[in-house]
Amino acid sequence: MTRNLTTILKSKTKCVAISRDLPTTIIGERINPTGRKAVLEALRAGNFDLVRKDALDQAAAGATVLDINAGVPGADEPTLIQHILRNVVDVIDIPLCIDTANPQALAAALSIHEGKALINSVNGEEKSLDAVLPLAREHGAAVIGLCLDGAGIPPTAEARFSVAARIIERATKAGIALEDVIIDPLAMAMSADSYAGRIALDTIQWVVKEFGVNISMGASNISFGMPDRKYINATYIAMAIHAGLTCPITNPLLPEVNVAILAADLSMGRDEYGMGWIKAYRKREKERKVQ
Amino acid sequence: MTRNLTTILKSKTKCVAISRDLPTTIIGERINPTGRKAVLEALRAGNFDLVRKDALDQAAAGATVLDINAGVPGADEPTLIQHILRNVVDVIDIPLCIDTANPQALAAALSIHEGKALINSVNGEEKSLDAVLPLAREHGAAVIGLCLDGAGIPPTAEARFSVAARIIERATKAGIALEDVIIDPLAMAMSADSYAGRIALDTIQWVVKEFGVNISMGASNISFGMPDRKYINATYIAMAIHAGLTCPITNPLLPEVNVAILAADLSMGRDEYGMGWIKAYRKREKERKVQ
Repeated sequence: MTRNLTTILKSKTKCVAISRDLPTTIIGERINPTGRKAVLEALRAGNFDLVRKDALDQAAAGATVLDINAGVPGADEPTLIQHILRNVVDVIDIPLCIDTANPQALAAALSIHEGKALINSVNGEEKSLDAVLPLAREHGAAVIGLCLDGAGIPPTAEARFSVAARIIERATKAGIALEDVIIDPLAMAMSADSYAGRIALDTIQWVVKEFGVNISMGASNISFGMPDRKYINATYIAMAIHAGLTCPITNPLLPEVNVAILAADLSMGRDEYGMGWIKAYRKREKERKVQ
Repeated sequence: MTRNLTTILKSKTKCVAISRDLPTTIIGERINPTGRKAVLEALRAGNFDLVRKDALDQAAAGATVLDINAGVPGADEPTLIQHILRNVVDVIDIPLCIDTANPQALAAALSIHEGKALINSVNGEEKSLDAVLPLAREHGAAVIGLCLDGAGIPPTAEARFSVAARIIERATKAGIALEDVIIDPLAMAMSADSYAGRIALDTIQWVVKEFGVNISMGASNISFGMPDRKYINATYIAMAIHAGLTCPITNPLLPEVNVAILAADLSMGRDEYGMGWIKAYRKREKERKVQ
């Protein structure tokens, strides 16, 4: 019998519940300079207007958690991530996902965060487990565990499941509740490996069946190097939701993926009377008329 | 351990293999007067030009099996279905799916069919089992079993699974190979029941896990009564393919559903090097330029 655990995240006054018994939680990915030159340059210039706009736009488009990444090459990441976080909470009260591989930046962000954050991420390497899990425990945060370790990204679902199981074991031993561990199976580019999509889907199903935990995943790597990427991303995210994905990290401003998530929730029986679908349809119609 | 059984269908000289180890088989649905006034009127007038065109167009768009339905109210169905079948095989050599609830029409079609047909359909009612299974056995046809019986369409996945199990038991006892039974879980309108999509998805997974048989399904009822139906249909079919659907009955001329099937096959690791996806993309680009 599959359990559906619930992860609660909190901002200063808001809370979000992530569960397979609820509609999909969209973690907005746009507050991230990687591959976004305008954001990179603005952050380098100490200008946070775009960050503030990205926060508001993503929430308006359906994100209920915002990922915050301060990965500006050469920057002082602990200071920068605090600036970004302060600017975001200044414009919107919404749970945050602290996205960094730098333990100092993570500690800095958590130290000024009010509520219950999501950490993105820990992985199966000892170094990562040792650095991140105590911080998660100390700050009462939930944590995303990536299915990779010192040997790299395992090439099979079995091996990724093993990494997930190890992260879960170590996290719970470190005093983190099972429901506060979220697993990311790693959806890699199918252009490099025809089975990349399948491996992540199978990993999700195995992890969900065994542990009942929530599942996160980036939704766009999968189509890297392929034509008509938006259709692949939309289809893949719906299949991943069927497999057990509950909180994708994605761009809610992309209509194809957003619509696929809504249709997937409807199909899974998580949108009573289709009210969410119909509401979003009316919003799309209104926007079409404005344009 | 899930088995993936293979159903082989044959026309005069062609064969099609249906399996979860292969790309999805599209059964083209358009040779059907239901809800298509032009087809209905043409058939009433004894004009089969549209039937012949539908056969060619659907095959060109990716259907590898064609559904044939002669449901013209008041018509002599056994005679009409023979005319349709002869017109189709006159223009294209492709396996056929004989779609009728009328045992006389079914017998008439099977009597002139060369190869190995798919019968659409039998259901769990004694009357249906008694009429259809001997014909399937006699003509060496495969058969689609609908998850409904004399009491109607069961409202739970458990009860639909039971109907599927009964059909499979009766079919195999009647001498039909297990791999020649294909189950249709019945995807009903989600506008009438928010759980309709989920029930069909769960039924698919249970039937596949227990029997390993192939799964068919109509792909458009699901969105009846909802706005922006094409997005729901596309998303739902991808999720159903993840659940185990192998041979949907659909309209391959609808780009959204067709693209979703291709992306789903890619995501399931059934499209090596993405060659099917890239080939279809190039075809779409060519068609865009022609327009």
